[in-house]
Amino acid sequence: MTLEPVKGMRDFYPDELYKRNWLFDHFKKTSNIFGFEEYEACVLEHEDLYIRKAGDEITRQLYNFSDKGNRRLSLRPEITPSLARMILKKNINNSLPIRWFTIGQCFRYEKMQTGRKREHYQWNMDIVGEKSLNAESELISAIINLLTTLGLSRKEFIIKVNSRKLLNDFLLKYNISDKDFERYCILIDKIDKIGEDEFKKSLLSEGIGIEIINEIISFIKIKNICEIENFLDKSSSGGFSEILNFFELAKDYSILDCIQFDASIVRGLSYYTGMIFEVYDSKNEYRAIAGGGRYDKLFSLFGGTEIPMVGFGMGDIVISEILNDKNLFPEYNQKKNILVFAYSEKEKNMSIKITDRLRNIGKNVILDLSYKKLDKIISYTNKRGYKEIIIVAPEELKRNQVLIKNMYDRTERNINLDDFFNC
Amino acid sequence: MTLEPVKGMRDFYPDELYKRNWLFDHFKKTSNIFGFEEYEACVLEHEDLYIRKAGDEITRQLYNFSDKGNRRLSLRPEITPSLARMILKKNINNSLPIRWFTIGQCFRYEKMQTGRKREHYQWNMDIVGEKSLNAESELISAIINLLTTLGLSRKEFIIKVNSRKLLNDFLLKYNISDKDFERYCILIDKIDKIGEDEFKKSLLSEGIGIEIINEIISFIKIKNICEIENFLDKSSSGGFSEILNFFELAKDYSILDCIQFDASIVRGLSYYTGMIFEVYDSKNEYRAIAGGGRYDKLFSLFGGTEIPMVGFGMGDIVISEILNDKNLFPEYNQKKNILVFAYSEKEKNMSIKITDRLRNIGKNVILDLSYKKLDKIISYTNKRGYKEIIIVAPEELKRNQVLIKNMYDRTERNINLDDFFNC
Repeated sequence: MTLEPVKGMRDFYPDELYKRNWLFDHFKKTSNIFGFEEYEACVLEHEDLYIRKAGDEITRQLYNFSDKGNRRLSLRPEITPSLARMILKKNINNSLPIRWFTIGQCFRYEKMQTGRKREHYQWNMDIVGEKSLNAESELISAIINLLTTLGLSRKEFIIKVNSRKLLNDFLLKYNISDKDFERYCILIDKIDKIGEDEFKKSLLSEGIGIEIINEIISFIKIKNICEIENFLDKSSSGGFSEILNFFELAKDYSILDCIQFDASIVRGLSYYTGMIFEVYDSKNEYRAIAGGGRYDKLFSLFGGTEIPMVGFGMGDIVISEILNDKNLFPEYNQKKNILVFAYSEKEKNMSIKITDRLRNIGKNVILDLSYKKLDKIISYTNKRGYKEIIIVAPEELKRNQVLIKNMYDRTERNINLDDFFNC
Repeated sequence: MTLEPVKGMRDFYPDELYKRNWLFDHFKKTSNIFGFEEYEACVLEHEDLYIRKAGDEITRQLYNFSDKGNRRLSLRPEITPSLARMILKKNINNSLPIRWFTIGQCFRYEKMQTGRKREHYQWNMDIVGEKSLNAESELISAIINLLTTLGLSRKEFIIKVNSRKLLNDFLLKYNISDKDFERYCILIDKIDKIGEDEFKKSLLSEGIGIEIINEIISFIKIKNICEIENFLDKSSSGGFSEILNFFELAKDYSILDCIQFDASIVRGLSYYTGMIFEVYDSKNEYRAIAGGGRYDKLFSLFGGTEIPMVGFGMGDIVISEILNDKNLFPEYNQKKNILVFAYSEKEKNMSIKITDRLRNIGKNVILDLSYKKLDKIISYTNKRGYKEIIIVAPEELKRNQVLIKNMYDRTERNINLDDFFNC
């Protein structure tokens, strides 16, 4: 029997889970100060929640299977569809907008490459029922809050933004219809991965002329808002004015230094309809830290009426790589732990009493009734990194005392038991 | 498309997740004060981790499937085998004993009955490398600590204990061998469910005589330690003396009032080898709250050397039912949230500044830039249960002030902005 976890899955030993918990606590704290409520959907969902026609990579990489009742199920690849399902089910239209967050595990069945896993945890923040760009600004501010409280400087990351409406306006010039739009977005999202030549081939096979393809390539290379004017008219393009409005608002939010326009950002999920954004380290040494955007039509895919939604997801893997490389994770230790050592069976009762008392006042205590030699206990306590040993031994008990050994500064002190039980 | 979660699975809306988080925080706090470190294994495991020959119900109810690479996988039905796998993999024999805990989701594919789910969360505490009954006492003390800090009185629950060694000693009298022992344990565990008649039939079909079967039934009805003497000799039964030793230790631990001997407690998992215990509400109105025991031979099943292990699991469902029925869960509210309301676009910048400031000092803030009428905002804030509205309006701003409306006591107060930004 193999001792390895399933291919692509991770075990978390205490030192690793400690780091992850520290990260998740930051996710939760940022979510709280931005007024988000926590929810949770099950990791297992009906497969059809994720089946889309546009060719989303996520659909092709489902970790799906048939259960014993012949249901087609999938371990979720993302959490947004579950959120939409939960919101639709509870008909909460009358108390919108709502702000919800979750941290959940997601699975993808993809070819294994170095550093790629088949599962990760994802922090999701979503605002439901908010039409204005204020929602996007709040979410991006939350990401900045998270990254800076984790210890990154504002210069170490960049949030690239774009709008699908802008791309839509541009493609409409070439009579590329709404029907094909989602599919083209997915193709454009892959250009970095597949390269320009492959991208050209794909569009040629769709029947698009080479001049138009070259125009598209020029367009998605825009990194400066002013250059959009070379392709689109400010007054007639809703996407263009959305971008301008967003940068105005970003100025009000004092986050202009952290964001950058990038026309190549389109996101690989077909359901986005408006502003979209991806977060990268400034040196571009890692994969995307987070990504999100507006998806006002997801509800209608599920048979509901349209409700504006904006959200993002941040996985635990890339940000943890960065935090590890920059040495920003706190070190794991068991310094809060105290070991109570009974010298012999005669000291058992008093050791139990001392342990009880310490636990009652919230201390973390390991009770040791092994009656081993003290030097073995000291060596064990050292190995495990516990802070103190309380030695309950006959000599000291005669004087109504116990000896406390601090394993870090090597000091020792006697404590009177009356004081101990009365303090 | 259905809006329901997969059959037997649960969604957690914010008010529900709040309760679960409150429960989990108690799990974590008890684990910490007993000196346990947190670990996590993946919810997806190789199926063969759970395949056992003894007829464990858990093996027949696996939520298993073939993945796209034809691996036989299963959503874990329990966490103990993953723990054993992780411990074995890391060869940590030289720093034993260790105390580990985890809270994780477990899945079973079973026939749906009222109140039964196909998933639950389970709190596991395990002590690895501790031979003495001190390990059992520590775990049972931890369960008592948890239940009382949740708000139950010591009279409201009972921990039923037994030892598989005792049953083994008893069955050996009738030449029932070790080989069959595990299978018989599983049968005995089911007697309450299937009834005495069905139990008799099962043992008859195994070739056991009716007199012996009646003796077994009499034996497992023992609830008083003294009565064991009618069946076994104190001096020759290791199981009997183990029980006596455990009750001695329980006296030292001052937990005698919470425990009860019960010879019918055998647990449905074949890997237990020693002390076993199950926790029930005193009125026996609910299913078991928790269960566990010693399983010193699990490692050898996985090809490792034997290491003593004791552990228990407590699911979230039964304890939550009890806490709900006894009204012990705190009520969910959003009283920590403050809404900052910009009266018009002119007050946008100041509203953003106030929001930033509040978040920087750790307050939970929703920024509202919808510029709706104030009465709509008040009604929305009420509906969502937020504590305060900070109204950023032109009249007040002229006086360098904002108005704070408390939604709970209906008071209002003006705050000077210089004071606000400097405090």
